[in-house]
Amino acid sequence: MSRTILIIGIGAGNPEHMTVQAINALNRADVLLIPTKGEEKAFLADMRRDICERYLTNPNTRIHDYAVPRRRADGNYGDGVDDWHHAIARIYEDLILEQSGPEETIGLLVWGDPMLYDSTIRIVEHVRGGGRVAFDLEVIPGITSIQALCASRKIALNRIGLPVEITTGRRLSQGWPEGADDVVVMLDGVEAFRSVADPEAEIHWGAYLGTPLEITVSGRLGDVAETISDMRGRARQEHGWIMDTYLIRRAPGHAGEGES
Amino acid sequence: MSRTILIIGIGAGNPEHMTVQAINALNRADVLLIPTKGEEKAFLADMRRDICERYLTNPNTRIHDYAVPRRRADGNYGDGVDDWHHAIARIYEDLILEQSGPEETIGLLVWGDPMLYDSTIRIVEHVRGGGRVAFDLEVIPGITSIQALCASRKIALNRIGLPVEITTGRRLSQGWPEGADDVVVMLDGVEAFRSVADPEAEIHWGAYLGTPLEITVSGRLGDVAETISDMRGRARQEHGWIMDTYLIRRAPGHAGEGES
Ligand SMILES: C[S@@+](CC[C@H](N)C(=O)[O-])C[C@H]1O[C@@H](n2cnc3c(N)ncnc32)[C@H](O)[C@@H]1O
Ligand SMILES: C[S@@+](CC[C@H](N)C(=O)[O-])C[C@H]1O[C@@H](n2cnc3c(N)ncnc32)[C@H](O)[C@@H]1O
Repeated sequence: MSRTILIIGIGAGNPEHMTVQAINALNRADVLLIPTKGEEKAFLADMRRDICERYLTNPNTRIHDYAVPRRRADGNYGDGVDDWHHAIARIYEDLILEQSGPEETIGLLVWGDPMLYDSTIRIVEHVRGGGRVAFDLEVIPGITSIQALCASRKIALNRIGLPVEITTGRRLSQGWPEGADDVVVMLDGVEAFRSVADPEAEIHWGAYLGTPLEITVSGRLGDVAETISDMRGRARQEHGWIMDTYLIRRAPGHAGEGES
Repeated sequence: MSRTILIIGIGAGNPEHMTVQAINALNRADVLLIPTKGEEKAFLADMRRDICERYLTNPNTRIHDYAVPRRRADGNYGDGVDDWHHAIARIYEDLILEQSGPEETIGLLVWGDPMLYDSTIRIVEHVRGGGRVAFDLEVIPGITSIQALCASRKIALNRIGLPVEITTGRRLSQGWPEGADDVVVMLDGVEAFRSVADPEAEIHWGAYLGTPLEITVSGRLGDVAETISDMRGRARQEHGWIMDTYLIRRAPGHAGEGES
């Protein structure tokens, strides 16, 4: 006797980015657990409501919201994150035991794709490690904010045969990453693009991608950095929260190679 | 008076990875252009047939296959690729003019996501540059082979707050990329994982991901490199072609940071 947990990527803001597999997963679930947190709370709740209204046709599926605990911001990220994940794992354990029967299917809705800067998979593995709940696990991919950015700007992520690095704002603010001239930046609370010294670099920036609030800017970094910073500040103030992602390319050091 | 071109990501092998947006795009098209090429030809043709059978409900949509020209393999990748893209752009121009009326919508089906190691966007921009066909362009993202790999292996792409580099087999065979301990490798015709000196590295390998032929292997590189090489060789011989993608992680140099 065992439960099934479905970790379902729902896309990063556009409900039409839901895949057929994700829609089927929603409808296979006996219970859907929806995380709510922070200032995006209301927005994420709307997005979830929209997705369930559009795609959930199984009348027996139950929906249960839960609040994600806030992580202590003590700067000690290594231990801090791990403690926090274990705390969430215990909440999941309780939720799963309370909200589902021993052979039921539980769907966890994850923003974008669960593989990308998201810890739901790791947390669920902590639940497994805890030994109180046995389950089979399936992971369903979703369109990421990086894909929403490239589609919106109508650009390729990589230049021909060249590598791309995906990194965080914190890391970019410590210097351009070695080994790549094309860098995608996520989780940027510090406007790290302002620390990039090369005004000739090209930036493609997008916030609230895929949502009705979407704003994007592309251009020479030297020309648009201030504009982005202003727009970002104003949007953040207006909505109370922001999620943004960008791609920066600088002149390549190397020639490209095989792709189709 | 202007045409509309839709560049539609169809996922990397699993028809259920089609998004609602991609399905709607198929059905908006007056004509769908389907590239066929190389030894995967029959397989890609089947995949396309399957996708159209499942999702194309517009009885007026016309389907047109075309052969992608083969690129000269003279090693001069810079010019070679560019010449080749211009050659394809001329074929697209002709196809579009022959196969569609001046206000029609043309759908181009692209494997995975058009942003990732694919030149359809660049080629279509060459068509625009040619000046013979005017059009509006929309790009629709699709689930990539990287996402299919992570979902199948139930793993996160990145470790907490750490960067990931996406690169090619050719590049990895020239040495581990600087600046990242987590590397995704695509377009690998040389089994570049065999050139990685660290037997303690962890590899997650997948071929024909999302398709009924899917095979995957995860493990310590020192333990599984030979197995992967053998399986890869046998599968390639059996099917006449192979597409594989893998993630290699080595011990991280740095501590992680903020993610949810
Ligand atoms: C915790 S990560 C989760 C990423 C998510 N799993 C994905 O696949 O996109 C959150 C970061 O993703 C990016 N992000 C997510 N949704 C976004 C959106 N709609 N527009 C712009 N950036 C977004 C931002 O960089 C944000 O800081
Ligand atoms: C020209 S690139 C196109 C990538 C595609 N646009 C995507 O989003 O995955 C082709 C490479 O993608 C990877 N690939 C594509 N489909 C795959 C699949 N079903 N399984 C494994 N690898 C795949 C392989 O590394 C292959 O060499």
